[in-house]
Amino acid sequence: MRPVAEHAAAVAALFAPTATEWVPLAEARGRVLAQDLVAPHPLPPFANSAMDGYAVRSADLAAVSVELPIELPVAADLPAGRTDGPALAPGTAHRIMTGAAMPDGADAVVQVEWTDGGTERVRVDRAVEAGQNVRGAGGDVTAGEVVLEAGTLLGPAQVGLAAAIGSGTLPVRRRPRVLVLSTGSELVAPGEPLRHGQIHESNGPMLAAAVDDAGGRAELLRFVPDDVEQFVRTLDDALAARADDPVDLVMTSGGVSAGAYEVVKDAFSRTRSDEGSTPTGEPDRREGRGVTFTKVAMQPGMPQGLGHHAGPTGEVAVVTLPGNPVSSLVSFEVFVRPALRAAFGHPQPERPRVRARLAEALDKPAGRRQFRRGRIDAVAGTVAPVGGAGSHLLAALARADCLIVVDEQVTHVDAGETAEVWLLDG
Amino acid sequence: MRPVAEHAAAVAALFAPTATEWVPLAEARGRVLAQDLVAPHPLPPFANSAMDGYAVRSADLAAVSVELPIELPVAADLPAGRTDGPALAPGTAHRIMTGAAMPDGADAVVQVEWTDGGTERVRVDRAVEAGQNVRGAGGDVTAGEVVLEAGTLLGPAQVGLAAAIGSGTLPVRRRPRVLVLSTGSELVAPGEPLRHGQIHESNGPMLAAAVDDAGGRAELLRFVPDDVEQFVRTLDDALAARADDPVDLVMTSGGVSAGAYEVVKDAFSRTRSDEGSTPTGEPDRREGRGVTFTKVAMQPGMPQGLGHHAGPTGEVAVVTLPGNPVSSLVSFEVFVRPALRAAFGHPQPERPRVRARLAEALDKPAGRRQFRRGRIDAVAGTVAPVGGAGSHLLAALARADCLIVVDEQVTHVDAGETAEVWLLDG
Repeated sequence: MRPVAEHAAAVAALFAPTATEWVPLAEARGRVLAQDLVAPHPLPPFANSAMDGYAVRSADLAAVSVELPIELPVAADLPAGRTDGPALAPGTAHRIMTGAAMPDGADAVVQVEWTDGGTERVRVDRAVEAGQNVRGAGGDVTAGEVVLEAGTLLGPAQVGLAAAIGSGTLPVRRRPRVLVLSTGSELVAPGEPLRHGQIHESNGPMLAAAVDDAGGRAELLRFVPDDVEQFVRTLDDALAARADDPVDLVMTSGGVSAGAYEVVKDAFSRTRSDEGSTPTGEPDRREGRGVTFTKVAMQPGMPQGLGHHAGPTGEVAVVTLPGNPVSSLVSFEVFVRPALRAAFGHPQPERPRVRARLAEALDKPAGRRQFRRGRIDAVAGTVAPVGGAGSHLLAALARADCLIVVDEQVTHVDAGETAEVWLLDG
Repeated sequence: MRPVAEHAAAVAALFAPTATEWVPLAEARGRVLAQDLVAPHPLPPFANSAMDGYAVRSADLAAVSVELPIELPVAADLPAGRTDGPALAPGTAHRIMTGAAMPDGADAVVQVEWTDGGTERVRVDRAVEAGQNVRGAGGDVTAGEVVLEAGTLLGPAQVGLAAAIGSGTLPVRRRPRVLVLSTGSELVAPGEPLRHGQIHESNGPMLAAAVDDAGGRAELLRFVPDDVEQFVRTLDDALAARADDPVDLVMTSGGVSAGAYEVVKDAFSRTRSDEGSTPTGEPDRREGRGVTFTKVAMQPGMPQGLGHHAGPTGEVAVVTLPGNPVSSLVSFEVFVRPALRAAFGHPQPERPRVRARLAEALDKPAGRRQFRRGRIDAVAGTVAPVGGAGSHLLAALARADCLIVVDEQVTHVDAGETAEVWLLDG
């Protein structure tokens, strides 16, 4: 069986780095910056007052001949935003508000609390040093400085900084676009009644949410029964309809194991081999690199597939996940999520990993890496498995906040021993 | 000055719990469940095969008279989704696929690997126990069970579980709707050129991103200059235009300190007092509980305000944040974010808090709780301050991944001493 790391590398290799697009500031949150962001002007752009008060020449208050309090004529009023403030003449003061540009000739601000607040003349009670209560131009950012590097994840503070240097739009990496398609003749849409033998389709909504959660852009296609024609038609119609906005990945679930009706396997095998040439012997332009199905040494999630589908608009990357819901989401976590995030440059493609002591013993088969669902107690440093190893146990999956990873060769872990834990909330 | 905790409680008290709304599964991610979700049917809904193989009566293979391998006639084919599978007669097998309903009369499945895979007759090499490779009805979830409790944050696994029990839509708490409005005559929109004395508006985009990041729904209004008429008109026009979809909070920045042109203070003071009665002496219907301005014992972020504005469609909660960008975002973190998240039932309204050793000494004034920007090294357990205490240092804010909280009475912390740290990425 194929090692987990080898399959993970193969999935990662399916993705090219996504292209750059420019988005308005209001849409930049959660995106990754595509280029270094350089300040075209300093921050602050001009020396300005850090206080409401009076702009002065500090020397006017500090000369040995000066006795405080001193009264100065107020020659101008400088609210924030005033663009034509006059210079300060020696022996005078300008009333100034926080953020207003320092007038030429002034080198300090006396806060209003140290004055009588006068508007014609002002009484100043205390001296200030040169530079006091003044924010120098460039004190935060200098012109030409890289304020945010390519690869930065944009949160509120980064958006604020980008705005402050005047960026109305930002170059960010495109979110990878993923078509999600579930298969299975037993599937019924949630909200519709079940007949005996049928179940509600859960993988599609779950995987679409997982793609969005990872920072991708999921589009959930209507699930299809175990019918190769219908599968291929649904997929190719969807690809054709999106010719202008290319799809980065087709992600299927179900139809990949060893049964008699493995629609995904059959469909992708057919486009690769049976339709590999036209009646005239010319190579079929639809022939592509194909999808390879393999068994990966993991539990859950053994049957996996990846490759390329020759769709109507060209080749598109394909990952085929197993159909059991737990297998499906665990496979997404192990293979697709990190690859997807790396593709758009996310600085933390992988889940945070910690080690924790097992609250109870675990047994597992040799030869497969096991991903058990768990709940972590960060304060105690322990992790407890939730539910059994069964790959259909969705309720336990929904209670879990982490995956417990137990290596291939291990068959037993005692309570109290440590294990690697992937934090799903991180 | 007002203690931080007291102001935080007052901000939290502005919010009523948001109402329930029903959203399609595809929009449920990141929302909080408003009601317990009860399974209307068990999961699995019916006993089904965990393997591709043959449904059998285990007794047919285990009787003392049986010698293995044994050949059984294959009486039916049971793909997943078949709703009319016939019962199993003794001494026969049904070919069955993973997920297909177990036929009446069968109690185990022989996996295909233990057979010759025949379709007319099948050779079975090994016996199975009763129940082997069968997933019992209700083994995951029983009918009537609460699968997700009210207050659960919906991630991919929870969406999957909800889908599996047949929920096409989910009752979730409405995201609080926040109008964001910056003030200042010095402001220019990002992307437009600056004149001397002007700066680019950064608080609005930053605070809107912070609201969205917290799980709220921000609407950024065009910033206004320091002009009371224009401020009130902008706000009331926006409120009137949203009469059908009420606003939970108006959040302003700037215009609340001690200067001569404090537009937010002046505007909200006016609607409370000067317009408190009509010429006929009747109480003005616009009169409300008003907005109270106060100094909070913190740095940055001392000037704060909160209350209610009597808008054209009724009273709306108001929080007024200071205008310096760092003060503004820190105030949001301390007061608004936890209140907003609590309002829509988020299970973790507060940032994760840890303790870490300071990488360098810190000095601060007595009497105010200080929130310094920092970078944490989780492996080393240390935290280093980023930039100085200045409330205009946006670049340092954008490099920070945590806030370092130093209590009111402390004036000095030595390097190596521990401090409370709020993780901003959590």
